[in-house]
Amino acid sequence: MKKGFHLPSFKFSGIPAGIKKDGKKDLALIYSTVLAQVAGAFTTNRVKGASVLLDQKRLRRNRCQAIIINSGNANAGTGKQGIKDAARMAREIASLLQIDERLVMVASTGVIGRPLPLNRIIKALPRLAGSLSPDTIRQAAEAIMTTDTFSKICYRKSRIGGEEITLGGIAKGAGMIQPRMATMLAFLLTDAAIEGRSLKSAFRDGVESTFNRITVDGDMSTNDTGLLLANGAAGNRMIAPGTRDLKRFQALLKEVMAELAEAIIRDGEGSTKFVQILVKQARSQADARAIAFKVANSPLVKTALFGEDPNWGRILAAAGSAGASLNPEKIDIYFDNLPLVRRGTSSGEEMEKKAARVLKNKQLQITIDLNLGKAEAKVSTCDLTPDYIKINAAYRT
Amino acid sequence: MKKGFHLPSFKFSGIPAGIKKDGKKDLALIYSTVLAQVAGAFTTNRVKGASVLLDQKRLRRNRCQAIIINSGNANAGTGKQGIKDAARMAREIASLLQIDERLVMVASTGVIGRPLPLNRIIKALPRLAGSLSPDTIRQAAEAIMTTDTFSKICYRKSRIGGEEITLGGIAKGAGMIQPRMATMLAFLLTDAAIEGRSLKSAFRDGVESTFNRITVDGDMSTNDTGLLLANGAAGNRMIAPGTRDLKRFQALLKEVMAELAEAIIRDGEGSTKFVQILVKQARSQADARAIAFKVANSPLVKTALFGEDPNWGRILAAAGSAGASLNPEKIDIYFDNLPLVRRGTSSGEEMEKKAARVLKNKQLQITIDLNLGKAEAKVSTCDLTPDYIKINAAYRT
Repeated sequence: MKKGFHLPSFKFSGIPAGIKKDGKKDLALIYSTVLAQVAGAFTTNRVKGASVLLDQKRLRRNRCQAIIINSGNANAGTGKQGIKDAARMAREIASLLQIDERLVMVASTGVIGRPLPLNRIIKALPRLAGSLSPDTIRQAAEAIMTTDTFSKICYRKSRIGGEEITLGGIAKGAGMIQPRMATMLAFLLTDAAIEGRSLKSAFRDGVESTFNRITVDGDMSTNDTGLLLANGAAGNRMIAPGTRDLKRFQALLKEVMAELAEAIIRDGEGSTKFVQILVKQARSQADARAIAFKVANSPLVKTALFGEDPNWGRILAAAGSAGASLNPEKIDIYFDNLPLVRRGTSSGEEMEKKAARVLKNKQLQITIDLNLGKAEAKVSTCDLTPDYIKINAAYRT
Repeated sequence: MKKGFHLPSFKFSGIPAGIKKDGKKDLALIYSTVLAQVAGAFTTNRVKGASVLLDQKRLRRNRCQAIIINSGNANAGTGKQGIKDAARMAREIASLLQIDERLVMVASTGVIGRPLPLNRIIKALPRLAGSLSPDTIRQAAEAIMTTDTFSKICYRKSRIGGEEITLGGIAKGAGMIQPRMATMLAFLLTDAAIEGRSLKSAFRDGVESTFNRITVDGDMSTNDTGLLLANGAAGNRMIAPGTRDLKRFQALLKEVMAELAEAIIRDGEGSTKFVQILVKQARSQADARAIAFKVANSPLVKTALFGEDPNWGRILAAAGSAGASLNPEKIDIYFDNLPLVRRGTSSGEEMEKKAARVLKNKQLQITIDLNLGKAEAKVSTCDLTPDYIKINAAYRT
C-alpha cells in the first residue's frame, strides 16, 4: 500500500462530522469527475441497513458518480426513517456536486439501531464537498474506519486496451466479518472503459474468491457493501466480453480485492495471527468451503491459535462437524509444510513440537487434505483473543 | 442437586488413575446390579471418538450393565488402536465384574489425538471395581469432569406403575458444547421397568428438547455420549406405549435432563451469565431453532452480554443472518419483560437504560418475537469472556 497515489479522474475527501464521539473522521466522499458504470454486491443478511436498501434500488440503473459514506452509525434497525435519512444524505450531497441524486450511492457502518445524526451530517456536507481532491484517498479510507487499526488502500496499474489503466480501492473491516456477498465496506475504482456485463461478472467473480472467503468472527453484518466504479477516463479500447483484455482486467481486479480482503483479516479485532485454512481434495467445492469456514470460525481452534498450541484434535473435530463428506481415517493436516496428522492420527510428539514453533509466527497456513476428491477452498481468518472480547464488550460505551 | 442420594440397584465409583496430570479423579464406573435396558444418543460429528464407535455397535443389543468412563483423554483421532484400547478397557472391567464384555459401554472425554494411557487405566481397574458403592455417585460425577467447575447430578422420585421409582443422572460439559444428539457426556439411570421402544422414544424426545438445545461455543464434540439405563429393580408395572405411566415417565425424564443441561450451561467455560434465547411466532420450528442458535452462538452477542451492553442491533443482525424467514419490520425483542425493540426499531433510550440494569443479573431471557407464525424454540447459552479464551488457549499445556 502506497501513500497518496492518484486514481485518475477520481477525487476524495474524508472529514470529522461529529458522528463518532471521539472526534475522528467519520464522513467520506468518493467522486468520479465523469459518469461511471457501477457493479455492486451487498450483504445477504435479511436485516439490511438503510443504505443497502437504497443502493440496491439505485444499482439497477448501472450508473454512479459519487459515493458518500459515514462511519460511527450503521443506520440499520432504524425503520422507514432510516431510509429517508439515507436518501436525504444523497440528495443534499448531489445538490452540492450538481449531479442527479440517483447517481449517488450511500454506505453506513457502525452501531446498529440508533438514528443517524442527520443534522450534523448535513451541516458537514459543504466542507466535505469543498475538500475533494485527487490526493486525499487516505482521508477517505480513514473516515470509513470503525474499530480498524489501520486504513486499507490498494491500487495497481496495468496496460489494457492500448492504455495504462489504474485500478484501486479502499475497504474497512475489523468485526462482524463473515461477508456473504461483499465485505463490510469496499470501494473499487478504475478509470478503465469496460462493457457493463463484463464489469459485473468480473466483480462477482472477484468477490466470490476474495471478500467471500474471509472471516473474523462468523458474524454477518447488516451493512456489507461492495461497489466497483469504472469511469473510462483512461481512454482505453472498451474491454469487451471474451477478450484477453477482460481476462487481464479480471486478474488485476482479483489482485486488488485479495489484498484488501487480506488487510481486513490482518486487522481483525484483537487478532495476533493471520491464518489461512486450505481444504484440499474435497468431494465438492461446497464441502471444501463448509469445512474451511467451520474450522476458521471454531472458537476452540481460534483460541488454540492464540495460545500457540498445535491442537489438531480441535481442527479434526471442527472439520467433522461441518456436515460435509469426509473420512477421518484419510485426513492429513499440515501446519505450513509440516505433516502434523497423517490418515487421521498424530505424526508423533516430535512433529507437534515443530508445529508449536511454526505457530509462533504471525502468519501460517493450515492445510486439511481430505484425500477424497478434487475440490479445494481457502479461507483467511485470525485468532480469537481476550482483546476481541474487550473491544466488543465495550463497543457502544 | 442433593448429595449422596441413593439410586436403588445402581453402584458407583470414581478414582484418580493418573490420566489427568493434576492427580484429580479421572476414571468412573456405573454398575447396575441387574441387567438393564439401554437407550443411547451420540455425537453426529463425522469424526467420532473410539468409545462412541464401540458404544454405537453395542447399543444394537439394547442391554447394558456397566458404563466405564475416563476423563483427561478423548481417545479420538487415535485410529484403529483407539478402538482396540476402548474394547480392552471394557473387557478388563467386565472380567472383574464377572459380566459379558458386550454389556459394558465406554465413554471418554478430554484431549483429542493422544493415545489412551491404557496401562495406567488397567492397573487402576481393580481399585475402581473394588470401591463400587450405592453411595458414591458424587465420586463418579467428579471423575468425568474436565474443565467443569462443579459436578452435575440430578434425581427425582415418582410413583409410576404402582411403585416408587427413582430416576437420576450425571453429566459433564464446559466446552466444545453444541451437541447435536446428546451432550458431551450424560448418564441417566432409573430402576423403572419400561418397555424397550418406549424407553428409546422417551430418551429421544428428552434429548431433543434439553441437551440438543444448549450451546456454549457452537463447537461440536467428537465424543458426545448420552446413555439411559433402566433396570426395572423398582418392581413397577412395566411402562408400556400409549399409557399414562409413559407420559409421567417422559415428563420425569425431561425434568432431570433439563436440569442437567442447564447445569452444563451454568458451568460453561469462563461464563458469567446464564442466558435463554426464546424465538417466538416463527414460521417453522426449523426457523425458530436456526435463529435461536445463531443468536446464541454469535460472538458479538455473547461479548455484549459479558459487557452488560443491551446491544440489540447485534441480536437483530445475528437473527437476520440465520437463513430463516423473517421481516425486520415485524420483530419485537424483549430482555426479560422489557420491550427493548418494537417492530424492528428501538423503544428509546429510557428502555435501553432499563435493559442495561436487567443485564446486570446473572440470568436473563431474551425473547425474539418474529410475529410471523406459530413455532417457537428456546436455546440456553452463556456469555463469551476473556476466561473462555484463557482456558482454551492453555488447555493442553
